[in-house]
Amino acid sequence: MTVDVLVVEDNPADLEFTLRGLHALGYVTEIDVARDGEEALDYLLRRGDHQHRKSSPRLVLLDLKLPRIDGLEVVRTVRREPHLAIVPIVVLSSSKEPKDVQDCLAAGANGYVVKPVDYQSLREALAHVAEYWLRLNRLPGD
Amino acid sequence: MTVDVLVVEDNPADLEFTLRGLHALGYVTEIDVARDGEEALDYLLRRGDHQHRKSSPRLVLLDLKLPRIDGLEVVRTVRREPHLAIVPIVVLSSSKEPKDVQDCLAAGANGYVVKPVDYQSLREALAHVAEYWLRLNRLPGD
Repeated sequence: MTVDVLVVEDNPADLEFTLRGLHALGYVTEIDVARDGEEALDYLLRRGDHQHRKSSPRLVLLDLKLPRIDGLEVVRTVRREPHLAIVPIVVLSSSKEPKDVQDCLAAGANGYVVKPVDYQSLREALAHVAEYWLRLNRLPGD
Repeated sequence: MTVDVLVVEDNPADLEFTLRGLHALGYVTEIDVARDGEEALDYLLRRGDHQHRKSSPRLVLLDLKLPRIDGLEVVRTVRREPHLAIVPIVVLSSSKEPKDVQDCLAAGANGYVVKPVDYQSLREALAHVAEYWLRLNRLPGD
């Protein structure tokens, strides 16, 4: 079964709110989690524990400030792999720094969403993210 | 003033429905139109009549089958310009062909939406596209 979303997030509170917000939508059922950039790369590049993974998630929701390998480096590394060029990556970060936005988009992130601080706003943002990226946006296998 | 959307569409009926659907949202006020791929490239690369243009649109909605230069070539040409790497391009095409989806995303289109055939469905799709790309997605200048 295709995974709907890979959530890459190290902050336990942010992760809980994100998962709760996605589950609340009712139609996002397959969610995987990576807690640092290296785990995200192992998952997406199908290395180590993930070597038998058969498909890519429909969407990667990627935090920026991550242990071991940061989010920007995850984008750059994934985009160097031609077969992963089309995996949608949306950065979900509390940073509003123009440089962070610029660097992530220039590196090949499909989108950049500033993470709202309160749960209700985060839930609304995730609803719009999911509506566009999981229901409307087309991938070659659809 | 920053243009909200550049609509690249040659079919008069599709163009009318797209413009009507965007205007109906109430908050998408600045819309420009290019009717073929060459006009789209002149606009985005600020050539010819567009040489004095100061900024890029927040979103390019791009049809694929266009006169003179097709949509895929527009994506490829725009993405070769480093300063245009972050301009969001969403393909809006009636084609569901996996090869079209694959080629456009691999060339650097941010997203791909299959154009619904009836106006009501198109209007709903445009509402979700605009909600994500114009209200939620962040650009460096925001």
